[in-house]
Amino acid sequence: MSKYIIGLDFGTNSCRSLIVNAADGKELASNVFPYPSGKEGVIVDSADPQLARQNPQDYILGIEATIKKALKKAKQVHSKFSPKDVIGIGVDTTGSSPLPVDINGQPLCFNKKFRKNPAAMVWLWKDHTSYAEAAQITELAAKLRPHYLSKIGGTYSSEWWWSKILHCKNTAPEVYESAGSWVEICDWIPAHLVGELRPNKIKRSICAAGHKAMYNKLWDGLPDEEFLNSLSPGFGSIRNRLYDLAFTAESLAGYLSEEWAKRLGLTTSVAVAVGAFDAHMGAVGAGISTGTMVKILGTSTCDIMISPNQRILNDIPGVCGIVDGSVEGGYYGVEAGQSAVGDIFLWFVNNLVPNSFGKTQDEKFKNLQAAAKKLKPGETGLLALDWNNGNRTILVDVRLSGLILGQTLHTEPHEIYRALIEGTAFGALAIIDRIEEYGLKINEIVNCGGLASKNPLLMQIYADVTGRPMKISKSDQTPALGASIFAAVAAGKKAGGFSSVDEAKQKMTGTGRKFMPIRENHEIYKKLYIVYRQLHDGFGTKKWSGSMFNVMKDLMAIRDQVRKKNR
Amino acid sequence: MSKYIIGLDFGTNSCRSLIVNAADGKELASNVFPYPSGKEGVIVDSADPQLARQNPQDYILGIEATIKKALKKAKQVHSKFSPKDVIGIGVDTTGSSPLPVDINGQPLCFNKKFRKNPAAMVWLWKDHTSYAEAAQITELAAKLRPHYLSKIGGTYSSEWWWSKILHCKNTAPEVYESAGSWVEICDWIPAHLVGELRPNKIKRSICAAGHKAMYNKLWDGLPDEEFLNSLSPGFGSIRNRLYDLAFTAESLAGYLSEEWAKRLGLTTSVAVAVGAFDAHMGAVGAGISTGTMVKILGTSTCDIMISPNQRILNDIPGVCGIVDGSVEGGYYGVEAGQSAVGDIFLWFVNNLVPNSFGKTQDEKFKNLQAAAKKLKPGETGLLALDWNNGNRTILVDVRLSGLILGQTLHTEPHEIYRALIEGTAFGALAIIDRIEEYGLKINEIVNCGGLASKNPLLMQIYADVTGRPMKISKSDQTPALGASIFAAVAAGKKAGGFSSVDEAKQKMTGTGRKFMPIRENHEIYKKLYIVYRQLHDGFGTKKWSGSMFNVMKDLMAIRDQVRKKNR
Repeated sequence: MSKYIIGLDFGTNSCRSLIVNAADGKELASNVFPYPSGKEGVIVDSADPQLARQNPQDYILGIEATIKKALKKAKQVHSKFSPKDVIGIGVDTTGSSPLPVDINGQPLCFNKKFRKNPAAMVWLWKDHTSYAEAAQITELAAKLRPHYLSKIGGTYSSEWWWSKILHCKNTAPEVYESAGSWVEICDWIPAHLVGELRPNKIKRSICAAGHKAMYNKLWDGLPDEEFLNSLSPGFGSIRNRLYDLAFTAESLAGYLSEEWAKRLGLTTSVAVAVGAFDAHMGAVGAGISTGTMVKILGTSTCDIMISPNQRILNDIPGVCGIVDGSVEGGYYGVEAGQSAVGDIFLWFVNNLVPNSFGKTQDEKFKNLQAAAKKLKPGETGLLALDWNNGNRTILVDVRLSGLILGQTLHTEPHEIYRALIEGTAFGALAIIDRIEEYGLKINEIVNCGGLASKNPLLMQIYADVTGRPMKISKSDQTPALGASIFAAVAAGKKAGGFSSVDEAKQKMTGTGRKFMPIRENHEIYKKLYIVYRQLHDGFGTKKWSGSMFNVMKDLMAIRDQVRKKNR
Repeated sequence: MSKYIIGLDFGTNSCRSLIVNAADGKELASNVFPYPSGKEGVIVDSADPQLARQNPQDYILGIEATIKKALKKAKQVHSKFSPKDVIGIGVDTTGSSPLPVDINGQPLCFNKKFRKNPAAMVWLWKDHTSYAEAAQITELAAKLRPHYLSKIGGTYSSEWWWSKILHCKNTAPEVYESAGSWVEICDWIPAHLVGELRPNKIKRSICAAGHKAMYNKLWDGLPDEEFLNSLSPGFGSIRNRLYDLAFTAESLAGYLSEEWAKRLGLTTSVAVAVGAFDAHMGAVGAGISTGTMVKILGTSTCDIMISPNQRILNDIPGVCGIVDGSVEGGYYGVEAGQSAVGDIFLWFVNNLVPNSFGKTQDEKFKNLQAAAKKLKPGETGLLALDWNNGNRTILVDVRLSGLILGQTLHTEPHEIYRALIEGTAFGALAIIDRIEEYGLKINEIVNCGGLASKNPLLMQIYADVTGRPMKISKSDQTPALGASIFAAVAAGKKAGGFSSVDEAKQKMTGTGRKFMPIRENHEIYKKLYIVYRQLHDGFGTKKWSGSMFNVMKDLMAIRDQVRKKNR
């Protein structure tokens, strides 16, 4: 009899459930639940565009609605399916998205007193209100605890755990004082499912702890009290309200609570795995192994690699994180990424594309795509820096911005669209180069996420720019599939799952389409990448010295050569 | 009894006639004739976007149609008007726009053999096919005859006379060999009106000769045979088919031929003045005098100044030309300019503005304008280089391109539109600074052309960026008015005109609206100009050395300051 797993994926605007067959990862049914609160699920503040919060009630509503609907669908498509055969639930979420809770683990915003207070809600990953605190943490850690920064690329981000909690202490002390603890939503949701929300009982994710909270076994877990006190008097005492241990995602968080089993129509023998971030679980859902880079291509991108933890792995400057066990037990997880990829195309299409390319966003994308595809590399004479939302890897700098260069009086939208795709491809290559430069070899690149499956032009350009084949993950929903894989391991072989993540990955994942680099295109992109790096290093580092006098001329020379050849 | 003058202005897409009262420059009637040939009057080649030619037949059709209609209109608005009271015709045209003619002055394209041959037509000013020849001329002149370059800013342009004739020799030798001479259209049209087309009888314009053909009385007029032969074997012999003398625009070219008098219903006592380029005549129509900079703001811009020729005037590096008598006799004419201004806005609106700003070009401009007006200087965080068509002054480099920098995921079209206007204003300031740096003082700036009268936001930004008042010329049609002024002088006082250009200017021109700089805005633009110059010098010269690391950060800091102050 087949056994089934439910993967729960909590995104920025909605959550999704995916029911898969535990034996082979085959997807039976899925359902999406858009969060009802705020603007597309995000609580915003018109006076402060940097604020982004979430209502945790939306997650609870989402679990019930989306699982029930997916179960119903599964029965429809597969008559032999029974909810009793569901053996595990895995959870992935955005992050770092910390939530202040009371001593019972209830979100502070569930308390009448704080119901409307954004500081008492989930501080969503893309909340940037804490940029001053992030700068302070980076500065003080560089001075007092340089090792804290060594595993997170050298710069602490405003998107991360400590920046947000410290900003809460600085600006909403009443919330800060009332918090019995702070919990990442990837920890809070599994805890809710198993019915054990007491903060010191919640099993915390090593993925969140290591990448976002400077947690490391090399030192005493989280940063020490003295360091925290140096950030703000008395801040060190928060250490007692947090945690000492963190777990890999294949660990068992517990079994489904009676209350949830009843609500969902499942049994209490459903294993709930420890949660982790979407990109990391997505990498597993894409079948990551040593030597594989998994690129999760969405509004922004994450690049994930793993490396056996018996082998020495150098720190890689500018790479967001190297954390033992953050992807799976026994391996270092390595995380890099670009702050905006799909978001740049969306910005462009929504703001700068006339209706001659179509009326709707979809039409515009389709027509831009078709027109851009006809262009040869170098033919536009354009070059773009992909920094509209700053640069996460390898510069780790939010105070950077976009740049488009090379336009004439004849430049058309589809040319700029292609240049923007190429800009993100050059950004991707800069990450690949950096990782390999520090000794981590990349033998294979597997792409997943919306852009990978829906934008063949982008994938071909990535292959041509990097000179490497671009494989596409078979599954469209790798984060939820990855969450299922961990749940299958947490459930165990006896229950119908697996005894290791490696075993589960092998059975449950695979790749589909593959884009091969075209040599002729790669040769031109090699020339363009030299110019890109000149702009990249010129505007993004202090190391470039010399004029930019050649830049526009080189682009024109390449353009003229390409046009001549293809006349 | 009132006397009247007709100004004829030959533009890129159409020609215009303007009938003015000789006593006070009051405009009676005007008419526009769009050229029937090619694409909006320009012969293009889909295989070569750099080619731009014109059919001289269009000018002849234009003279007749537009003068007849204007005369008719003049009679309607002013019953006492009689064509018999027209005492002069002045002509201004684009340039350098040379035309190969046979030994009788007939355009080679009027000959069956060459009817379809673009090389036998008018080589329109914006034809850029001759860029290689321009580079060769610059290189050889710098080596062999550096003084040839000293009065034209140091670089010979692909838009100019010799580049085009040499390119014709190189690529269309059959046309080159058949040419009895080459004539600028500002010389050919007056010659046609007086009925004397024989090349050695045509009175050539000092404006065209000095600014575009390296003609100077300091040496033997045009460049010498030896130099021309060094460009291409045998090229020196063309010298015999050209001219030795050149004339200021107030000179008499002759009187209207019987044939034209009959066709137009005018008398043969109409004085026809020597022609000149539109910008130079436009400067006179705007009332130029010593210390005035006249800015002719259109698709591109020209900045014109004059300086008494008794006074020593330094060469000004990067300024297109300093020519004795090119604007009016007794003064050096100084010409600078920006390769694209209005053209950049047109490019942006036609290519990158969605229909949310309106359906038509006019609507889009109107709404962009209204939205951009609400922004404070520095608030967009954007900075643009105005080089979509290269940089004429002060870099004299066509191998430059556009740049937009500072965009985020929230940047909107009206913000980019404002940044583009600001970019052209910074470009204008770079020219002002350069001219004053070399000792030519600017006491007043008078603006004319379409953008000056129709874009108050642009004019206010120019005032704020430069910190100087921006006056607007009273006339909307300063080139045609300028042409009338010269014709009034050529006709002479006795006939009802004037005895000097200065006298005519005083009576016939004036300024209207004035934009005063706002101190607070100027202070912010001073900061932005520093960043602009860093980009300008970095991408446009070899002299900048150092990283661009501060650029995006400085723009963000200025933006954040402005936003905070205006919150």
